[in-house]
Amino acid sequence: MPEFLRLVSPSEALARLLSQLPAQRRVEQETIPTSEALGRVLALPIAAPHPLPTFPRSTVDGYAVRAADTHGASAGLPAYLQVIGEVAMGKASDLRLSPGQAALVHTGGMIPEPADAVVMLEDTQTPRPGEIEVLKPSASGQNVIATGEDVRQGEPVLEAGALLRPQEIGGLMALGIVEIRVARRPRVGILSSGDEVVDPEVEPGPGQVRDVNSYALSALVLEAGGEPIRHGIVPDRMAALQDAAREALKESDLVVITAGSSAGARDLTAEAIRSLGAPGVLVHGVAIRPGKPTILAVAGGVPVIGLPGNPVSALVIARLFVVPVVRRLLGERGPALPGRVAARLTAHLPSEAGREDYVPVRLVVTPEGLAAEPVYGRSNLIFTLVRADGLVRIAPEVTGLAAGAAVEVTLF
Amino acid sequence: MPEFLRLVSPSEALARLLSQLPAQRRVEQETIPTSEALGRVLALPIAAPHPLPTFPRSTVDGYAVRAADTHGASAGLPAYLQVIGEVAMGKASDLRLSPGQAALVHTGGMIPEPADAVVMLEDTQTPRPGEIEVLKPSASGQNVIATGEDVRQGEPVLEAGALLRPQEIGGLMALGIVEIRVARRPRVGILSSGDEVVDPEVEPGPGQVRDVNSYALSALVLEAGGEPIRHGIVPDRMAALQDAAREALKESDLVVITAGSSAGARDLTAEAIRSLGAPGVLVHGVAIRPGKPTILAVAGGVPVIGLPGNPVSALVIARLFVVPVVRRLLGERGPALPGRVAARLTAHLPSEAGREDYVPVRLVVTPEGLAAEPVYGRSNLIFTLVRADGLVRIAPEVTGLAAGAAVEVTLF
Repeated sequence: MPEFLRLVSPSEALARLLSQLPAQRRVEQETIPTSEALGRVLALPIAAPHPLPTFPRSTVDGYAVRAADTHGASAGLPAYLQVIGEVAMGKASDLRLSPGQAALVHTGGMIPEPADAVVMLEDTQTPRPGEIEVLKPSASGQNVIATGEDVRQGEPVLEAGALLRPQEIGGLMALGIVEIRVARRPRVGILSSGDEVVDPEVEPGPGQVRDVNSYALSALVLEAGGEPIRHGIVPDRMAALQDAAREALKESDLVVITAGSSAGARDLTAEAIRSLGAPGVLVHGVAIRPGKPTILAVAGGVPVIGLPGNPVSALVIARLFVVPVVRRLLGERGPALPGRVAARLTAHLPSEAGREDYVPVRLVVTPEGLAAEPVYGRSNLIFTLVRADGLVRIAPEVTGLAAGAAVEVTLF
Repeated sequence: MPEFLRLVSPSEALARLLSQLPAQRRVEQETIPTSEALGRVLALPIAAPHPLPTFPRSTVDGYAVRAADTHGASAGLPAYLQVIGEVAMGKASDLRLSPGQAALVHTGGMIPEPADAVVMLEDTQTPRPGEIEVLKPSASGQNVIATGEDVRQGEPVLEAGALLRPQEIGGLMALGIVEIRVARRPRVGILSSGDEVVDPEVEPGPGQVRDVNSYALSALVLEAGGEPIRHGIVPDRMAALQDAAREALKESDLVVITAGSSAGARDLTAEAIRSLGAPGVLVHGVAIRPGKPTILAVAGGVPVIGLPGNPVSALVIARLFVVPVVRRLLGERGPALPGRVAARLTAHLPSEAGREDYVPVRLVVTPEGLAAEPVYGRSNLIFTLVRADGLVRIAPEVTGLAAGAAVEVTLF
């Protein structure tokens, strides 16, 4: 049996991890000003405290009328109405229309009682001051936004778990909701292990490499809505790894450990994760390239993810597993919709059946549309990803993609 | 001639605005820690101060060998090599291979001199301690990442204008570049005008509405990499508008003014923008829905954008004009690649030829793929956008899209 068929598929692996998190596993809530809530996730549902708009508004510049007064009006036989005044913007009007009367009203202005329609300026003529000819009939409600047409009082407007984008912030402000309860940013403890790894500020000696993963993963966690907490570099010794992981576990909602690159260091990381507590390791090995040696575990209710030490593998796998777990901890609703673009592949990409491949590609604008150029480079090389705009997924049942094939590129 | 044919197309409008900005119009630079640079834009190009990796590394667990010593090796006729030691992770090796010798090396470990290949563990046997049988021939460079294979010393690795994503932060750290010069966030002065507009904290009186645009636009500017500065609500009086706009102009890299909703207020905003300085208004009216009354101007080298007061129009237009200007001020390179997804339209969308239409849609996951449901609602209604996941563009030459049509949805 080919090795990859014995490994767990990426979607099955994620499902196993999420199913082992306590059902109500969420971060706590906190109250923040709505004006600072971009990218945060709502913790409680919101219903409209009042209708929106709060009063009937005109959608045009024109004359508020009783629609009945314009029935049958035409250019040949206009309806004559008496103009009794103008509704100032931002003011209630104390005007009251009697039959045969109209009031000048501006776009966004309040419709005076008992008008039920607005005739556009261009559909009127002014034969003399204080009087208009209406050249077209008006239906009740025409050119008027009714009270509550945007939202009715008490209507649910946002669900718990809603991601707050610019329009949600605008909508909340429209309702006067200037403070909201949101999910606290999940704290993601990040550990880099490996005897060869040194801090980026240090000049590496022979055989040493700088810590790339702690910083790239921190940035990814931040992007996903989490709060990265770097626990530094841990040597490849069991006691040191266990101590550092337990310490991180105490104050984290999710722990991410990148393994040292040698087989021994990877085994050590797996063993250290296994020792953290029940239910322990759920997945060890995923049918994916790059990133086969991925570990997914839960210890004492806290998810723990072991990533390969290669920076490309670590980032690709973190997008597939760390980001969804952060969303789950936030209680974020709605399908994940990472941006994708359609492109044509410029070269043949071979792949092994039974395994999902993720290939970094660079996007190039051509007269025929976007072209996706594979970025070759082993997963040890961080600059492979620097040169790439996104990833092409090769499905497990496919043994490769031909040059010229239409592909979807998931953007970074 | 239909009105929309007399208006400027959105792409022509943006080109006019950008062409009138001084060629070197950029924000200043500042130095920040690389670890805090997610989403920032690099101000200066970066070349590799040293090669990466800095030493030849093994990509597997195995034995470092002189490839020549394995020529012709096979399972039937293995090459016998003497193992002279092990290269510890993170250390230089003082081992030196003589002909016929090998050294144990781990993934990521340094290759000792003068080895030029690594034989995988599984391609060897150990007949007795201190000796291995190599069962396959090895080519020079096999299973080795050469010094400089990721980047060569002096190689340009990032251009000025590069957007810093998690992988760029990782790559910079790999090179020991822990501080960088980035473009300062462009200051975007935001003014809301309209006699009917009140602060969100205030209970609006009859005829009044809360300020939605200042906050929704602030969030959008933040998302685009700018620093929003809210200048509050300005009444519809020429002197007040001019004073507020001039004040904003002094300390901003870009000024955005949303007009009051009435025709008079829109004219007033246009006149106020016109009075700010040369070259003045470049575009007044764009062939687009929503957002026809958009104003694009430059005053004293600073771009000024007048947006319609309707919150939906304001946000749609800001994505088309404010975001690209912020990118230009940042000096951001590379094509704008807003995330898009392919979907099928669930209903017919009529449109007028000669005009670009942007229709908010909600995405629904169906067994047949994503469905895009138009979200109906006039552009006065902010919750139209709250219910939507993205926008479908209807090209100017198209008079509508049929239900079932394949569309691309630009995600918010």
